[in-house]
Amino acid sequence: MYKIGIDIGGMSVKVGLVDGDGKIILKNRRKTAKTPDKVIENMVCQVEELLSEKILSVKDISGIGIGCPGAVTGKTGMVDFLPNLGWKNIPLVQKLKEKLDTEIIISNDANVAALGEAVYGCAKNYNTSIMFTLGTGVGGGIIIDRKLYEGGHSKGAELGHVTLILDGEECTCGRRGCVEAYVSATALIRQTRSAMLENKEPAMWDYVGGDIAWVDGKTAFECAKKGDETAIKVQNQYIKYLAESIMNMLNIFRPDAVIIGGGISAQGKYLTDLVKDYCDKFDYGYKGSPKCDILTASLGNDAGIIGAAALLE
Amino acid sequence: MYKIGIDIGGMSVKVGLVDGDGKIILKNRRKTAKTPDKVIENMVCQVEELLSEKILSVKDISGIGIGCPGAVTGKTGMVDFLPNLGWKNIPLVQKLKEKLDTEIIISNDANVAALGEAVYGCAKNYNTSIMFTLGTGVGGGIIIDRKLYEGGHSKGAELGHVTLILDGEECTCGRRGCVEAYVSATALIRQTRSAMLENKEPAMWDYVGGDIAWVDGKTAFECAKKGDETAIKVQNQYIKYLAESIMNMLNIFRPDAVIIGGGISAQGKYLTDLVKDYCDKFDYGYKGSPKCDILTASLGNDAGIIGAAALLE
Repeated sequence: MYKIGIDIGGMSVKVGLVDGDGKIILKNRRKTAKTPDKVIENMVCQVEELLSEKILSVKDISGIGIGCPGAVTGKTGMVDFLPNLGWKNIPLVQKLKEKLDTEIIISNDANVAALGEAVYGCAKNYNTSIMFTLGTGVGGGIIIDRKLYEGGHSKGAELGHVTLILDGEECTCGRRGCVEAYVSATALIRQTRSAMLENKEPAMWDYVGGDIAWVDGKTAFECAKKGDETAIKVQNQYIKYLAESIMNMLNIFRPDAVIIGGGISAQGKYLTDLVKDYCDKFDYGYKGSPKCDILTASLGNDAGIIGAAALLE
Repeated sequence: MYKIGIDIGGMSVKVGLVDGDGKIILKNRRKTAKTPDKVIENMVCQVEELLSEKILSVKDISGIGIGCPGAVTGKTGMVDFLPNLGWKNIPLVQKLKEKLDTEIIISNDANVAALGEAVYGCAKNYNTSIMFTLGTGVGGGIIIDRKLYEGGHSKGAELGHVTLILDGEECTCGRRGCVEAYVSATALIRQTRSAMLENKEPAMWDYVGGDIAWVDGKTAFECAKKGDETAIKVQNQYIKYLAESIMNMLNIFRPDAVIIGGGISAQGKYLTDLVKDYCDKFDYGYKGSPKCDILTASLGNDAGIIGAAALLE
């Protein structure tokens, strides 16, 4: 049966009609409106557009799944807080249901990304998987025995906010030394820039055309691949941060797979091989530990829509 | 219905007959024998002794629960590795079942401690709870929606082996900087001794009769209560380690309660108030976070037996 997946973002709201295999049949997007009411009004239009284009009504879909960039309460359908949109305590599901009479489920975007991979993507053959989404921040998603685990009150799975270095770098959450402060793309860029300023070897400077403002999450990796020593140092230190963050979750969840998503996951097997080598060397149970595959996300740009639709599975 | 709880320890094996409310009706203990076969033979005798004293047979109990100090696989009933006893790959459940024909469930001792508190102890009114057992090492136990969560292959919930300070103190697991290396009683004793050697103020030295060998997990707390500055510093730093370790689990699980067990939990409300104050100040969601109570374990010396029996619930 078809379902609708909605990906609410700071820039745009994407809506897709998704089939039973997680394939997007049709999709549309609108710029994120300024008020919650206007966003909701737009969402209703966007859904109705997709349905009418396929000559379907809301009764022909199994429901609507929504991924939100912030804190929500799945049970009540309440959006508690979306920092980038300035939403606070919006009864999103209730308001949408007044217009679209079908099952509507919301979750956090990082949770939804993990669920999408587990249901339709690279983790579909694994029972238990953990996803790290490495972007501006670090999102976490936990799938236990094929079910999304959000933590109590839908407020857990904040895997970016686990300490890596007590009293370390400031984190957006108010604490210091969190995984997010070392493993996000933002952190990698900071680490790359800092190494470039300390060591003026030309490779990374050339890569960014002499302008440090152009450093991104690829700079260190691409230059390391070419053998630049400073870049290799940045890369290896970053891999250590990431692999240690992953190993912490191995010791808690012993998942069958860990998925790396977000921009940095574009490094693919190059990245996962480095992480795997580190984990194999330092894993708690050594050779006695259950096997865990390290993968990169497979659903690409539409992961938000597909993952949201997976909430209906 | 009665059940049997068995607590396998490095020194002794304790067996108890437990009623439906988690009360021990009868119990016995034997020194831990040298070989697994002899331990199993003794366990059978210990169970039969208890049953016969109450004129019961194995058919009159709902089963046997066993807590083991090491790695087990619940599904197969296999003891994979008990480091203190030198056991490797012992099919404990299968061997016991040949002699005692009833349901037999095994788990790790830290898991069993958490389950005991959740079913019969201080956490029985909470759906989701996390337990830290602070002893020689740090054990972890996770209860989600009233069920024991052991992690994949029964090998997770190793909450002592999550990084607190990357590249920090050596940990028994082979990594560096784990929670266990800062929050165990062993670590607190090390921290206390180190502060005493650096700062020869008399309070803690007097408390241990001038002999540093007598420092234990109480030394810093008891002297801090009397106002000794060095002791207060040790205590506050330890509370920071512990509270940060707890906050990491709040961000992952958002439990309703965190339980502190092991020797250090004898500090009771004094300890939990300090931890709570720290967490309230630095918690990720600030006032928006779901409430979590910090408790100390309630089941005392028989927690191992009672927790093991809870495996049958």
